[in-house]
Amino acid sequence: MLNYTHDIPTKVYFGKGSITHLEEALRQFGTNVLLGYGGGSIKKIGLYNEIMKILNDGGFRVTELSGIEPNPRIESVAKGVELCKENKIDVVLAVGGGSTIDCCKAICSGYYYEGDDLWYMVKHVKGPKKSLPLVDILTISATGSDFDGGGVITNLETNEKLGASFTYPSVSILDPTYTFSVSAYQTAAGSADIMSHIMEGYFSRTEDSELADGIAETILKTVIRNLPIALKEPDNYSARANLMHCESVACSGIPEYGKQSTGWSCHAMEHELSAYYDITHGVGLAILTPRWMRYILKKDPSCEWRFVRFAKNVWGLEGNDEHELALSGIAILEKFFKDNGIPMTLGELNIDETHFRAMADHACEGGRLANAFVPLESDDVMEIYKDCL
Amino acid sequence: MLNYTHDIPTKVYFGKGSITHLEEALRQFGTNVLLGYGGGSIKKIGLYNEIMKILNDGGFRVTELSGIEPNPRIESVAKGVELCKENKIDVVLAVGGGSTIDCCKAICSGYYYEGDDLWYMVKHVKGPKKSLPLVDILTISATGSDFDGGGVITNLETNEKLGASFTYPSVSILDPTYTFSVSAYQTAAGSADIMSHIMEGYFSRTEDSELADGIAETILKTVIRNLPIALKEPDNYSARANLMHCESVACSGIPEYGKQSTGWSCHAMEHELSAYYDITHGVGLAILTPRWMRYILKKDPSCEWRFVRFAKNVWGLEGNDEHELALSGIAILEKFFKDNGIPMTLGELNIDETHFRAMADHACEGGRLANAFVPLESDDVMEIYKDCL
Repeated sequence: MLNYTHDIPTKVYFGKGSITHLEEALRQFGTNVLLGYGGGSIKKIGLYNEIMKILNDGGFRVTELSGIEPNPRIESVAKGVELCKENKIDVVLAVGGGSTIDCCKAICSGYYYEGDDLWYMVKHVKGPKKSLPLVDILTISATGSDFDGGGVITNLETNEKLGASFTYPSVSILDPTYTFSVSAYQTAAGSADIMSHIMEGYFSRTEDSELADGIAETILKTVIRNLPIALKEPDNYSARANLMHCESVACSGIPEYGKQSTGWSCHAMEHELSAYYDITHGVGLAILTPRWMRYILKKDPSCEWRFVRFAKNVWGLEGNDEHELALSGIAILEKFFKDNGIPMTLGELNIDETHFRAMADHACEGGRLANAFVPLESDDVMEIYKDCL
Repeated sequence: MLNYTHDIPTKVYFGKGSITHLEEALRQFGTNVLLGYGGGSIKKIGLYNEIMKILNDGGFRVTELSGIEPNPRIESVAKGVELCKENKIDVVLAVGGGSTIDCCKAICSGYYYEGDDLWYMVKHVKGPKKSLPLVDILTISATGSDFDGGGVITNLETNEKLGASFTYPSVSILDPTYTFSVSAYQTAAGSADIMSHIMEGYFSRTEDSELADGIAETILKTVIRNLPIALKEPDNYSARANLMHCESVACSGIPEYGKQSTGWSCHAMEHELSAYYDITHGVGLAILTPRWMRYILKKDPSCEWRFVRFAKNVWGLEGNDEHELALSGIAILEKFFKDNGIPMTLGELNIDETHFRAMADHACEGGRLANAFVPLESDDVMEIYKDCL
């Protein structure tokens, strides 16, 4: 078991009605609020009005940044930073999914960034940054951005989508009822995202960080059990709550404590897909993951034990032929995604080979995947992309 | 699934050599340190010298409070508060097990308490308290006091041992190598304590908080697998690390998120044993737990499903007769404690019926166990104590 540092200062209010904590969460920082949100779904479900009533009744002064993109762009970050400076913002309130929260995190850090080029900050300035305080209200179970310090920002000019460390939310309000109206497609994609966050860390060489592996397996099993229920009964509170509880922990680092780092290969490969084609992140991950698994299992059979464990402990499969078991675990994962309505080929997303070489090169830039669970080079990634067609 | 609030500000450095973070952990608060510790085991393992070298080299001014008791007494709290005031202490450094950390938490809160009577603060002042900052270095895997805000203080004059909310440590340093020298008896008792923290919350009426239950089951299985290894090979790093990782999370509240509160019946009953007889907390819990389980299963068979789940998911037992399965789960728990060297009767600790009535009355004072998983009154507790003889 390896060393780890736990340092998550975020306070979480989880459950129906948790919005009652919003006013106190903001007021500790001041009364000038930047409200960041996406395409307007928060208006459709009545959440926008609920928030504005609380803010108006509380005497807050609100500046709005709407239209934050599903793969949030550096231009939105720049616009948010400008609004914060112009309006002497005390605290940023992000309302939405991971994209909105990620964008607002970058805004909070960008506010104090002294350079001119915010993309330089995203790409090159490492580690957590001095930031404005951030409060968020989550509306989809997917990214875990409510309980981690990172964010992913896209630059369509350079075809880059990059993760960076910004700041932890001070307070996250997680009310599963806000996810009742999330479409079946986005619910399934969000669950694939949760599962990917776990699988990226689960497939590690470390064998003896038992609590971390157990938490990872529990999250996978909980999502596997609850996603089909949420799709069938979109307002099943228990199913939505379980998915939300899992998404929050899945990206926190906790399921990887004590384990050798793994490179998060599927995320590196998916960010290229999203950067070039602006697809839904969770869908890209679902398509890539089983192909990545088969590829690395073939490339380095010494990692088979981990696939056997995955098949047994996550899917409850049994059998004496370990190789067969490893493959069955991958097959059942692929079937699970498919059965829950996720398109499972790049062809279905109208993506062809055109940019595969550039994407593969960029995914492996600077030897980024050289220390992955199974190290990958550009040619490996090319093969995996092709398997996804 | 019920609502929960997550609010744990503690930063944890886990693993061999984490003491390298001690200096920065203290310095953020100042240079006047109160060093609290117990009976001198930290001198035996060389940790005292290691700490003093770091503090002396760093120019810290150290005031010592040694001799903190295994069931820490209110007199030690009072002494610590006095030392903090006399020496203008900036930060308290607790080095030891849960008892030392609990005592230092009470000192940190007592420093700002305005009344004369610190026992009144422990017994009657609810909620977290304004406190001096606390840093701790853990030397035994047991109580989780390094990752929670509570503490348990004993008043031998009134025969009371009471839990209270004080403050979270700012930084906890968890190095498993410091537990290599912990005796077999204390290692086993500590593991029983970890398991009890889980079982107290696991036996709840809430059926659908799946991640919390999964984490609880993982912690129990991890302790069950690693305790015998740690007893056989006291310096097995992996086993000691797994026990320490579990102890930290077990008492954090995380394994109970979303679940109906349970009353922590065994802790209430055990605190009476420790208050009257000053026994090892984990041993008292190990003795009480299987008897409590059999008693409540008989009193309220509607809770049988939870025992069946415990038998299956924690112990891997199988069978069609659910009642038989429930009882087998309890029997194997009792056998596990016994096999690992824990005395499993009160008789072995020279405790007889003398104070049972007073203890039972006090454990149920103010209807404290009226809302437990299975509600208990004084007569119920009397029966459970008698079963332990």
